[in-house]
Parts: sequence; structure tokens; C-alpha cells
Amino acid sequence: MNAPPPPPAVQRDALHFLPLGGAGEIGMNLNLYACRGQWLMVDLGITFAGDSLPGIDVIMPDPAFIEERRDDLLAIVLTHAHEDHLGAVAYLWPRLRCPVYATPFAAAVLREKLRDEGLLSEVPLTEVALSGRLDLGPFALTLISLTHSIPEPNALLIETPYGRVVHTGDWKIDPDPLVGDPLDEAALRQAGEAGVLALVGDSTNATVEGESGSEADVRRTLAALIAEREHGLAVTLFASNVARLESVALAARDAGREPVLVGRSLQRYVRAARASGYLDGVRLLTEDEGAPLHKSQVVYLCTGCQGEPRAAMARIAGDSHPRVSLGTGDTVIFSSKIIPGNERPIGALHNRLVQQGVEVITEKDAGVHVSGHPCRDELRQMYQWVRPQIAVPVHGEARHMQAHGALARALQVPEPVLVENGDLLRLAPGPATVIGRAPAGRLALDGGQIVATDHVSIGARRKLMHNGAVFVSVVVDRGGRTLIAPMVSGRGILDGDDDEAARDTLSAAVADAVDGLPRKQARDGAALEEAARLAVRRAVKVSHGKRPVIDVQIVRVPG
Amino acid sequence: MNAPPPPPAVQRDALHFLPLGGAGEIGMNLNLYACRGQWLMVDLGITFAGDSLPGIDVIMPDPAFIEERRDDLLAIVLTHAHEDHLGAVAYLWPRLRCPVYATPFAAAVLREKLRDEGLLSEVPLTEVALSGRLDLGPFALTLISLTHSIPEPNALLIETPYGRVVHTGDWKIDPDPLVGDPLDEAALRQAGEAGVLALVGDSTNATVEGESGSEADVRRTLAALIAEREHGLAVTLFASNVARLESVALAARDAGREPVLVGRSLQRYVRAARASGYLDGVRLLTEDEGAPLHKSQVVYLCTGCQGEPRAAMARIAGDSHPRVSLGTGDTVIFSSKIIPGNERPIGALHNRLVQQGVEVITEKDAGVHVSGHPCRDELRQMYQWVRPQIAVPVHGEARHMQAHGALARALQVPEPVLVENGDLLRLAPGPATVIGRAPAGRLALDGGQIVATDHVSIGARRKLMHNGAVFVSVVVDRGGRTLIAPMVSGRGILDGDDDEAARDTLSAAVADAVDGLPRKQARDGAALEEAARLAVRRAVKVSHGKRPVIDVQIVRVPG
Repeated sequence: MNAPPPPPAVQRDALHFLPLGGAGEIGMNLNLYACRGQWLMVDLGITFAGDSLPGIDVIMPDPAFIEERRDDLLAIVLTHAHEDHLGAVAYLWPRLRCPVYATPFAAAVLREKLRDEGLLSEVPLTEVALSGRLDLGPFALTLISLTHSIPEPNALLIETPYGRVVHTGDWKIDPDPLVGDPLDEAALRQAGEAGVLALVGDSTNATVEGESGSEADVRRTLAALIAEREHGLAVTLFASNVARLESVALAARDAGREPVLVGRSLQRYVRAARASGYLDGVRLLTEDEGAPLHKSQVVYLCTGCQGEPRAAMARIAGDSHPRVSLGTGDTVIFSSKIIPGNERPIGALHNRLVQQGVEVITEKDAGVHVSGHPCRDELRQMYQWVRPQIAVPVHGEARHMQAHGALARALQVPEPVLVENGDLLRLAPGPATVIGRAPAGRLALDGGQIVATDHVSIGARRKLMHNGAVFVSVVVDRGGRTLIAPMVSGRGILDGDDDEAARDTLSAAVADAVDGLPRKQARDGAALEEAARLAVRRAVKVSHGKRPVIDVQIVRVPG
Repeated sequence: MNAPPPPPAVQRDALHFLPLGGAGEIGMNLNLYACRGQWLMVDLGITFAGDSLPGIDVIMPDPAFIEERRDDLLAIVLTHAHEDHLGAVAYLWPRLRCPVYATPFAAAVLREKLRDEGLLSEVPLTEVALSGRLDLGPFALTLISLTHSIPEPNALLIETPYGRVVHTGDWKIDPDPLVGDPLDEAALRQAGEAGVLALVGDSTNATVEGESGSEADVRRTLAALIAEREHGLAVTLFASNVARLESVALAARDAGREPVLVGRSLQRYVRAARASGYLDGVRLLTEDEGAPLHKSQVVYLCTGCQGEPRAAMARIAGDSHPRVSLGTGDTVIFSSKIIPGNERPIGALHNRLVQQGVEVITEKDAGVHVSGHPCRDELRQMYQWVRPQIAVPVHGEARHMQAHGALARALQVPEPVLVENGDLLRLAPGPATVIGRAPAGRLALDGGQIVATDHVSIGARRKLMHNGAVFVSVVVDRGGRTLIAPMVSGRGILDGDDDEAARDTLSAAVADAVDGLPRKQARDGAALEEAARLAVRRAVKVSHGKRPVIDVQIVRVPG
């Protein structure tokens, strides 16, 4: 093992930005600002592992760097309630133990998560009002309401002795967001007029020309589609998109149907929304309440728009949902995008519905979804308002951040700077410069434990997944000679009923290898183990063309 | 086990169609026709497993039904050389042992595969000329040249005592296919005029309005893009798309650059193309020949457009290719589509290139790709030419086949019929009717063996991949009491350096469980095993929150 690199030279009389997550990826945002020896964390989110890490669903940024400095960590401030911005708080807060600030809706969502992890009474969570102010050491924060695909998305105006930063969080320009405050253009302009040192912002759609569109357009489209259906009807959507949910509920009402929530995470977000004053007067039935009604009398709002196998939509499509059943003449609207990586499960879901005679409507067929992130025209508008000296693209993969940086350059931003997770960027004084590297990595939630993503167990599972495992126990006497036939079993290989002969052959091969060792070597446990392993490897390569994990236990019996 | 269902009632005096692969999926086509007790197979392809089957890459249709009737199987006729149409011949021919027919290019491609499997001298492979005829029992076949994304795509006009079938294979209407014969509109019209009972055809793009576009347009776009670059330049594409490959080669020549083939499968298809008279006079350098030239003097044609980790493009992006290196100012053109399921690896490839300063151009940015399958306007045209009584959509997922069927109905085809793999469809006499079900399944190439996709080993690997395995050996005396401490090891769980204490705890828990059994039970090996397994399961659930595969070997030592 090499010694770890020296810690980066965080300067006392300077303002720094350090992303530990979200720069180079869409997911698991963790942004840090440092000034005068004190640190501010903006967001602490998770991402999903996809198929890259067998047995792992949830991934989060490794906070080790800031954990070592947690005495100087003033707070975690959350921009909004999406999983990639607050999902890791319930897992990582015990390592950080600092105050947490969020607006009412994000706080309500976070409380549900903290309750699940038994942390609700421990975490000092403070609600900040929309457009509120917050003084944290050298950082004077003002929330600026933006628009996005969830209630209460905020930019942070961070005033420091070295200049102002606008940290956008996730945003778009929605002239009619339907739920919550409108985008606070005046506050952005005002910041721009006062002079902004740096804009640190969302790159998700930086490769997409034009504008992202408005929730109000989606509401009209959904209302028209729902009004013209006569049979069963389900809409699946991201559970956190409260405006979308309200759109479906209102369209259902106008069509003389009752909206019914199907799926646990919809219930949770509805609870959080109502607790924060949203969905006021919007009637939404629970599954129980909807159960007596015929499918033509309701609109089902369903979880599972990404093809998640245990969510409502997959169970309905598989005809295994206890209460909801759809068939010929019915319609399912996917009011959502496909998150990259989910194409196959979502395609399979569409096919299962189509096979049952259900009409499937997606954003390809009608305007039933808009993105929550700024396209290029919106980015242009933001830069006109804020006019920063420095642009720091975050919240994007390399291609998105590069496109964002190139656009900022084209818009005459003097210093567009590309960073990746772990880059310590000095924003001031002097030109924006990466002055060091902090360790940045990923942690995985593995069952109940949080482990490094390069943990030996995860690598071993990848090998097991491709090749299976062969277990051999060899019972030997003091001299290292087999006392009985070695036992051989396989998992993921050699475990078929038809493999019995192959297992017997392997047992014989192991016995031959062990008993064939010279007497001196036979006393050496490692030599016995290696001989047995080699015998298995060779035989399985020939018989199965595979290289399984091989686990040999040499059991030396006394006497 | 239930008894297998009775074989379907194949009628002697009738014409049947039976798909065993490709109906309900894009991949692994296997189509059968039966007439007067004899069978004809059209295509025998593979598909790729994606992440659904751990350890498996290649999937193929289970030919058991026709294998049992192979004495009545006249031949396999291949429509064209794509993997999903001929890729399984080299694996499944030994079970079928019948003559194989293909046009020269497909035959050349197949020969390479048969050579790999040691079957070249065994398989009776006959070349059929383009537009050639072939009499096979009650089936009189005429090849009709179509256009697609590979040389020599053929429809089969199948004349039988019960009527004519047009089996389209894969096709599009490309007015200027660049390589090979043009689409034989006259033959299609002529078939239509003579009267066609059924059209069995490609549904891939049946949900896409308009036309698929021409290779000639792509050639012009590529030529313009290549002409204007000055630095390093690579184009990645499907290796079988010979026209595309020729387009890049000609554009390189016009730009004063040498085209260099990078990647083994490109070499193979170029060999097959040259052997069949294509690419005549087109200069293409090997990697060796290109090695002395500077990257600004060449255009690299690369494999790996789908992000395959061991292919040329991934190695170039990872800066681990022995000969090709790209960086700032260079360009990579992805002259290909994204096959659904490959979004993540391809996105990661784009990001790695962008991080190295390479400009990435995809079909989103410029017209560098066209699909090889008919969009709705082309389907309309085909139906106008052929005017069948029956339309049988194949080569598509459920949603594509359903859209194809609905389009045929809208075009006044009297009998559009939706089938899935295993449906025995009687085409004549009488109205088209599914009269039975044949067993239809999938086989997987697992290392060197062909196994059922529900083989116990594959299921076990899925569990191993998520939870790992714990292996315990317990050495007991005749009475079932432990002689020494049980040995515990883990793979994918409990295998960290930090897990030693947990393994010791488990060993003690197993010993307690085994030695705590009543004397009578302790003599029963199964009871010992179950006691040990339960002890491990409980302890690991608490310590790791996981449910590993647990393999217990009870070793009873005599004396």
C-alpha cells in the first residue's frame, strides 16, 4: 500500500469549492465550500448502482475527507428533496453529526427517511423558509426559489468575504410550475447586479437545444388524454413530482373519476406535500378507498415508471397486483422519462402491457412529460441574469459538463472551469484554480453495512456471478493423506442433477492430487490446498469451460 | 413434474407457420414452415443475454421441437448474415444435421463461424445465387433481393400447394443501397399479382412513422464530416455493415487519408465481403499496415460501437489500445444506433472520450446512421406490392408486432394474425388459425456447454451475485459430535480481512447448533446440515443483513 497523498492545501484566506459527488455523474451530489477554516456542505445524495456492483442498490459519496474535518463543518444545507440531493443524509449523518437545513417540503421528506433509520430524534434538522436567510460562519446564505420537478427547489446565494456564489441546485425555467413559488427572477438579477463571483450549476441538459417546457403544458395534455378515455386508466410517474400528481388528480376529477394512489412511495410524498401545505383540497384516494370502485371510475396513480420489479406498475403488468388489474381497452400513461440504464426493464413492461391489450402512451407519443433541468436556452437566460466571473458546471456526466462549460465560454463568462469529484477549486482570491485533490470515492450500502465499492466481497460476487463456486473439503491425517474421499459441491456450476458424475470425477482428481504430493509437501496445509485447487481448476476448465471461484478447506483430523 | 403437453396437431394437408424464436423479441430468429409432413427452417440466430442471465452472453432458441422431427426437416435457409439470423447454426446444427442454404456473403460469414466450432467439414452448406431458386420438397423457394444494412438481404418467396408465402427477412426500402443488388420491386409486384397467401415480416420499426433513409445519405454526411477534420479521426460502426464501411473508406481516400481496420470482427466481415465480390478495389489497411502512419493521415474504422468492454473503441477510450491513441482535437464518429440496454456502457464510452478532449459525434448530432428496418411508409409500400391475404408480424417485441398488425389491418389486409414463439399457425386451408402450441424456449451458451436458461446453475449464480456464499465444513464423529471447530469461509460475503472475527463467531455458532442437537438427531446427516445452515443464516442476517447461499458439508470421520 502506498501512503495516502497529502491533504490538499486548503487556504485559510480564500474561498474554495470542492465537489465530492455529482461532478462527472448525474447522481449522489455532495458539494463543499470552504472559507476561513470552515466548511459548508450543500446536498448529500445517493445514486443507484445499476448492474455495475452485484448485490448493491444504493451508492453514496465517500465523505471521509470532510468526516476528518467535521469539527469545522458548519452544516449541511439541502437544495431540494430529490434522492440524489438528500438521500444519503440518513446513512452518512452519523459520520458528520452537524446541523441540517432544508425548506419545509425537503425537511418533511427527510424526516420520513430519518425515521426509517432511527435517527429522527438525533439529527438537528432546521426548517428554512422559502427565500429565507441563514448565517453560517463566513457564509451568509439566501435561498432563491427556482422551478424544477419537485416542490421547493432552491438556488443558494452564498455571500462570503471573497465574493458571492450562486449555487443553482437543480432547476429549469418553468413559467407556470403549478405548485409552489415561481422562479425568483428578481433575486437572480439582483445578485447579478451586485456582482457574482461564481455560478456553480446544473449541467444535465446542457447538450439539449431549446427549452425544457412547462408543467402546465403537461397538465393540459394529460387532461385531454384522460378526458377522452372510457375504460381503465393508470398514470405512472415519479412519486416526488407533486405538480404532476396534482395534474392527474385534477384531470381525473374533471373526467368524473377518482384519483387513487397505488404504491408506497406515492403515499410518502403525498404526506410530505400535505404537511408542507401542497395538494390543499386535492382529493386522493388510498388503495383501500379505491378498491370498491370499478376501474372505469378511477385513475390509478402508480409507482414504478422505471420498470422497478416490485413497484405497482410492474405488478399490474404482471397481473399480480392484489387490487388493480388492467386489460383490453385500458390505457397506461408513462408520464416520465426513461432514466438511462432502465431501457430494458421499461421496454419489457410496455410489452407485457401491450400483450394484455393495454394501450401504452409515453412521452414519445404525446407531451406527457417535461424534463426538470435547463436546456441551452434556459442556461443562456440564467447566465444573462447572474453574469458570473466564473462558471463551474456540476450535476452532469463529462459530456454534459463540457457542453455546459463551452456554452458558458460562448456566453463570454470569463472563467469557465471544469472540475471533477475531489478537485479543490480555489474560487478567490486570484483566478479560479484547482489547487489540490481531496480523496473522492463511493460507498455502497451492502445489506445493512456501508462498505467501499472496491470491497473484496463485491469483486468476489462479480466473479461468482459469471462462474459460480466450487467448494471442496479435504479431510487429511497428520501426514496430509486423505482419510475419506474429498467432498465436492458446486453453486452456480456443477450443481445440476446431471453433474453428479462430474462431482465424483472432481473428488477423485482432488484425492489424486493431494495424495500424490511428496511426503514433505503433504504436511504443508498451503501446498495441499493449492494442489486441490489446481486439480479442480483444470478439470472444470475442461468439463465446463469456466473458471469458478474455488474454495478449499483442508481439515486435518488429529489422531 | 407435469407430463409435457401433447404435440400440436400438425396437419398433413395444410400449410403451417411456427416461429420458435423472434416472435415477441428482436433477436434469435427461428421460423418453421410445415407442409405435407415436411419442415423448412428459415434462419437460426442468436440473441445476447444482457444482464438477465449471469455468466451468459449468447442465447439461442431451443430447437427441441424440430430436433425431434429432424428426419422431416428438409433444410435451413438463411435470409442474411446477421447474428440474429445465422448465429446459432454453429451451435445447434449438430442437433439438426440438415442441409444449409445461403447466398455467397452469408455463406462466407457462416463458414468462419463453423471453422471456429470445428464444423466446417461437417455442415453441408450450399450457396444459392441472388434471385436464385431452390426446390425443397413441397416448398419451391425463390430469393428476392431486398435492401438492409448488410449485403445480400433476401426475402423468400415460398410457393406451396396451399399458396404463396413472402417471408421478408430483414429489410428496408433503400433507393441507393450502395453495395449489392437494388431492391427487386418487380419480383415483389409479380408475387402480388400472382396472389400471395401470407406475408411474414419484419416489425422492428412498425412504431416509427416515415422512412428509414438511405445509406447514400449517410455516405454524404460521413464524407463531409471526414473532409473537414484535420486531426485524429475514428469511426465506429457495426462490422457487418459493408456499405457503411465502404463509405468511410471512400471518404477517407477523398480526404487524403488511409482507412485502417481496427478490431477482429471488422477483419472477418471484410474477408467475407471480399470473398463474395464486394469492396472490390477498396483499399483498407490492417492495423499493422496503419501503424507507421500518424493519426492525422488515417481514418480508423473501429469495432465496439456498443461499448463492448474488450472491443477496439473501449480500449482506445481507456487509452489501453496498443496502437491507437486519441486525444484533444481528435474526433470519434459513432456511425451506429444504440441497441436498447447498451445506453450505460455507450454513455460511459462517450464520457471517457470527452474527458480526453475528443469530440464525439453520434446520430443525435448528424445523419451518421440510418436504420436497416422498414418504417411505416415502407411497410405500407410493401403491402401495396405484395397484397397478401394474411399478415404475420414477426421480428419484433410485442409492441412492434402489435403496431405492425394494426397497420396491416388499416391497409385492408384481410387477416392480420399475431403469434408468439411456439404458436402453430395454420395458414391454409381455411382462415389463418393458431391450432396448437409447440414447446418454445431458450438455450444459453454457458462456457462450453449449451444449457436451458432455467438451469439451476444460472439461478444459483443470480443469488450468489446478490448475496455471496458461505461455505461450512463440519467434521463429526460417528455420533455426530464435532471433532474440531467447524471451518467457515465466505465468498462475496464474510471474505474481508475485517471479517475474521465474524467467521470465528459463525464457527462457534455452528458448533453450538450441531453439538446441541439431541443424540438421535445428531446421527442424521440431514439434521446436522440443517442445524448448521440455520445457525449461519440467522447469524449472517443479523451481522450483514444478507441471505447468502450456504453450503454445508458434514464430514463424518470413521473411528
